[in-house]
Amino acid sequence: MKLHKMKQVDITANMTVTELLDSMKNGGFTCRKVALATDLFLDMIRDESCTTFLGLAGALIPGGMRKVLYKIIEKEMVDCIITTGANLSHDLLETSGGSHFHGNIELDDAKIKELDVSKIFDTFVSYESFVKFENLVQKILDNIPNEPMSTRQFIYEIGRYVTDPNSIVKLAHDKKIPIFAPSFADSMLGVQSWLFSQMKPLKIDVLKDHTEFSKIIYESKKMGAMILGGGVPKHFIMNGSQLHDGLSYAVQITMDRPEHGGVSGASIKEAVSWGKVASDAKWIDIMGDVTLVLPLIITGVLSRL
Amino acid sequence: MKLHKMKQVDITANMTVTELLDSMKNGGFTCRKVALATDLFLDMIRDESCTTFLGLAGALIPGGMRKVLYKIIEKEMVDCIITTGANLSHDLLETSGGSHFHGNIELDDAKIKELDVSKIFDTFVSYESFVKFENLVQKILDNIPNEPMSTRQFIYEIGRYVTDPNSIVKLAHDKKIPIFAPSFADSMLGVQSWLFSQMKPLKIDVLKDHTEFSKIIYESKKMGAMILGGGVPKHFIMNGSQLHDGLSYAVQITMDRPEHGGVSGASIKEAVSWGKVASDAKWIDIMGDVTLVLPLIITGVLSRL
Amino acid sequence: MKLHKMKQVDITANMTVTELLDSMKNGGFTCRKVALATDLFLDMIRDESCTTFLGLAGALIPGGMRKVLYKIIEKEMVDCIITTGANLSHDLLETSGGSHFHGNIELDDAKIKELDVSKIFDTFVSYESFVKFENLVQKILDNIPNEPMSTRQFIYEIGRYVTDPNSIVKLAHDKKIPIFAPSFADSMLGVQSWLFSQMKPLKIDVLKDHTEFSKIIYESKKMGAMILGGGVPKHFIMNGSQLHDGLSYAVQITMDRPEHGGVSGASIKEAVSWGKVASDAKWIDIMGDVTLVLPLIITGVLSRL
Amino acid sequence: MKLHKMKQVDITANMTVTELLDSMKNGGFTCRKVALATDLFLDMIRDESCTTFLGLAGALIPGGMRKVLYKIIEKEMVDCIITTGANLSHDLLETSGGSHFHGNIELDDAKIKELDVSKIFDTFVSYESFVKFENLVQKILDNIPNEPMSTRQFIYEIGRYVTDPNSIVKLAHDKKIPIFAPSFADSMLGVQSWLFSQMKPLKIDVLKDHTEFSKIIYESKKMGAMILGGGVPKHFIMNGSQLHDGLSYAVQITMDRPEHGGVSGASIKEAVSWGKVASDAKWIDIMGDVTLVLPLIITGVLSRL
Repeated sequence: MKLHKMKQVDITANMTVTELLDSMKNGGFTCRKVALATDLFLDMIRDESCTTFLGLAGALIPGGMRKVLYKIIEKEMVDCIITTGANLSHDLLETSGGSHFHGNIELDDAKIKELDVSKIFDTFVSYESFVKFENLVQKILDNIPNEPMSTRQFIYEIGRYVTDPNSIVKLAHDKKIPIFAPSFADSMLGVQSWLFSQMKPLKIDVLKDHTEFSKIIYESKKMGAMILGGGVPKHFIMNGSQLHDGLSYAVQITMDRPEHGGVSGASIKEAVSWGKVASDAKWIDIMGDVTLVLPLIITGVLSRL
Repeated sequence: MKLHKMKQVDITANMTVTELLDSMKNGGFTCRKVALATDLFLDMIRDESCTTFLGLAGALIPGGMRKVLYKIIEKEMVDCIITTGANLSHDLLETSGGSHFHGNIELDDAKIKELDVSKIFDTFVSYESFVKFENLVQKILDNIPNEPMSTRQFIYEIGRYVTDPNSIVKLAHDKKIPIFAPSFADSMLGVQSWLFSQMKPLKIDVLKDHTEFSKIIYESKKMGAMILGGGVPKHFIMNGSQLHDGLSYAVQITMDRPEHGGVSGASIKEAVSWGKVASDAKWIDIMGDVTLVLPLIITGVLSRL
Repeated sequence: MKLHKMKQVDITANMTVTELLDSMKNGGFTCRKVALATDLFLDMIRDESCTTFLGLAGALIPGGMRKVLYKIIEKEMVDCIITTGANLSHDLLETSGGSHFHGNIELDDAKIKELDVSKIFDTFVSYESFVKFENLVQKILDNIPNEPMSTRQFIYEIGRYVTDPNSIVKLAHDKKIPIFAPSFADSMLGVQSWLFSQMKPLKIDVLKDHTEFSKIIYESKKMGAMILGGGVPKHFIMNGSQLHDGLSYAVQITMDRPEHGGVSGASIKEAVSWGKVASDAKWIDIMGDVTLVLPLIITGVLSRL
Repeated sequence: MKLHKMKQVDITANMTVTELLDSMKNGGFTCRKVALATDLFLDMIRDESCTTFLGLAGALIPGGMRKVLYKIIEKEMVDCIITTGANLSHDLLETSGGSHFHGNIELDDAKIKELDVSKIFDTFVSYESFVKFENLVQKILDNIPNEPMSTRQFIYEIGRYVTDPNSIVKLAHDKKIPIFAPSFADSMLGVQSWLFSQMKPLKIDVLKDHTEFSKIIYESKKMGAMILGGGVPKHFIMNGSQLHDGLSYAVQITMDRPEHGGVSGASIKEAVSWGKVASDAKWIDIMGDVTLVLPLIITGVLSRL
């Protein structure tokens, strides 16, 4: 084994994020992983033969990540997005004029409910925002074709009718970056879609997602993935990469643990045994909250693109 | 505040699980929570006005929980199950003659792959088992109606053609306990369903799940839930309980953390602010692995039913 | 790699803890680890050439583990104990007539303080109990020799004057099982010892611990350890085992994570690189709360001894 | 409850760390906590009536934090340090000419040992470095007074003989910032001190730490603390603050969980019930790895001091 002497992380008063990341390569544990993941994500993006997938799970927009995700799409860092329905719902909630809030997190949850507000760890959403969201979604759904659609088509169609320039649903539509949401039915958007479908025709064919997703995979020379949070998006990407030669690049950011065997916390290394990740792949698992880790990585990437 | 003197947990050589649980009420932290959750789950089951939901996420059958889940269904402890597709897939894999295995967890993942085996933390599944699973599923799907189905109907139809007496899919069918799998598309069963649908008609309408699920909810006087692992099943149950007066009883067992805002690790208490859990509900959150906690609780329940 | 077909965990209404553990060997993840750790701890105890060390960190007695620890000592399962000062303090607090309590965990912490009570996650200690503890300790310290003592001698001397038959400090004294508490100074017992030493002579020589501990180690043919919670006790045992050929047996139970490099969450496997654990050692790491895992293991051991 | 609309975190290519932190205040969860903790630590430092304590636990220098800790001391951000012995040992190891290394973390631990190297998660230390460390420590100890010393005096005396300008032990000595290490006996430095004491007189009086520490506390108008990792340093600081009116400011950074009742993962809020933290204190708990969080906070502080 070759040993490389560590230099320790150095910091200065007005250093840039990129300078800090560079210095963090001299440390150990999580700081070094974040620095190396920045390089790895850059490698993924710059490899022209690599189709890059982004998996989105967890409360990303309540956590403040809307603009960071926007930059990822705007700069076309990724070629395809797989998300839970919640991320779409929270994007459209902002688009509808609704908001996420800071407030008093010590307030009792029963009292929070009485104020027509709901809590997400240390952030809040108001009932009023949900109503705006619902009105927007119902209005948009009225324009959407009534043929059976994959979730990809469905979200693309929604994006067509979003006018908010800050929406990631709209931006992905405009950039023609496909968004799949294979488990969207359990989200607020899913519930609204169902309510709509009670009155007017709307058909979502989740099996069609596989047809479209496998087409993207078969057209890929190599596959890479940035996996945030795990969940269905991770599982769906890995189902796909198993049809290919496995992911050639992977970054995973999650706070979930591996010991219970569930997919969200499973190590990237274990995915090698499934053929979901290539045995010669470059990968980094980061144990940390996406809201802290992702802005660091994407700022680092932005400054070098 | 009334203070109750703790007596400490006592143990004896040949004590039963139920005796240990009774003694654990005298302790603190996780042991006491598990003991109290046993009582709470019993309360839920015995409350005739309560419709009890079971949420299944994570690698439960690779973790050895197939017979424990079987007992829950056999004794009709729950009225409705919401699961990821993976739990259905692993049940049917065992049904097909395939197996989960113990093996050498130190072996390198690339070498494990070369042996046509895949790893799930410290257990294994063989490629051969997957082939058996696939053959079984394709054969079953051939019998299934080609009208658009909810995932509930789809799984019910599958259960009709399963002959293995140890299958939880079959048992739930025979017991007429509905199983919903709103995100089943990202599972092995989802992939097989898609492959089948390429050749023959098969239509899964995930929005229809809401129609059927909301009917069950509207017919419920009270709602209770045992939530294992979180994920889409937790979210789906909570979406439903929001249409009602919130859950009156809830037990949650997960290793996920609350700090990143995602739903799997979110506290039950926070769900009160959403109206997903009633403000006067009885609930217990347990931080632990389902494979250890669930058999303790269900053994305790069995001995008192 | 040899693959062994898993049989799944089975449960019955009135099964004993030992029967459940036997069945848990058929599962995966944490349930199987707990079952295997029971066997491993039995192997350690039964191996007459093995000196067995018990490391105690964390809030074990507030968590209800006093009688479980008592049984471990009573049955002479271990030969030497290394503990934080807190475990000694909470044992002596109970001995003094003080108590740990259950109460209303929803009460605001500022209000809890006003009631002269302190919270430990979901248990409580009263100010009144601390006063009893302090009085007891001051009375005992009055009898203790004023020569410089290792923490082992100091705790042994304290044990001499404890009359409570339920005290683990007393039982260890009577059984001549040495207890080391190398970091005892930061505990309530440490503070009381300091207060005493302000008025009367009392000298604790923590370096002398190494003299006595290394003697025990050099007299051991093999070493084994049951490590609860990590912390200084784990580190101290491992410092010692490094002077030997490393631990031949190790069970670790903790909820700490390995990713930050700290010793508490570090894997037993990593300790092999330090010579703290023998490369051919038998070991199991369990990610779980000691209050749930330890009573299961010790009940299993009791029934087979 | 007053609700404040969230603006979402924004990033730009060459932004500084301080700009990123400012933007992170607009997010939620961990990113916002880190940003707010930066402000809170600044408040603590700027409050002239506040004595600020720094608690150091975990593998900080193997994680690359030596220069970050150096800056904290150099800029006199803190008035008193409480540490585990490991942090002193790793500082002196670097001082002695020894090193921490990056290497191949996939190598088997038994093979790593054969190479005379030891692993700390994803970093390494060589046996050769330990030898250098031991030689340095033995040489220094030869100069040290043989009267009974608190750990504070002991470390101060060591600092007197360190010539390495990068050493935090030396810098703290020069800056007259006291360092306590109440559990130092279980560290490499503790073992070396013991070996030395076998041949020559050396007496460490851990009870004397309380005398000196309580003097610092009684001279403080207010107390504040930055607590890294938990462990004995956290407990020791909190023991002290209980003698005062509790901490007025607290930042805690750890990956430990609260559910097992141990002090490392316990919430700052719970400490209010103990009088360890004032009921009107300002505090933030961060769930994350110190190696990632601390450089961000300290860079933010440096740029504003």
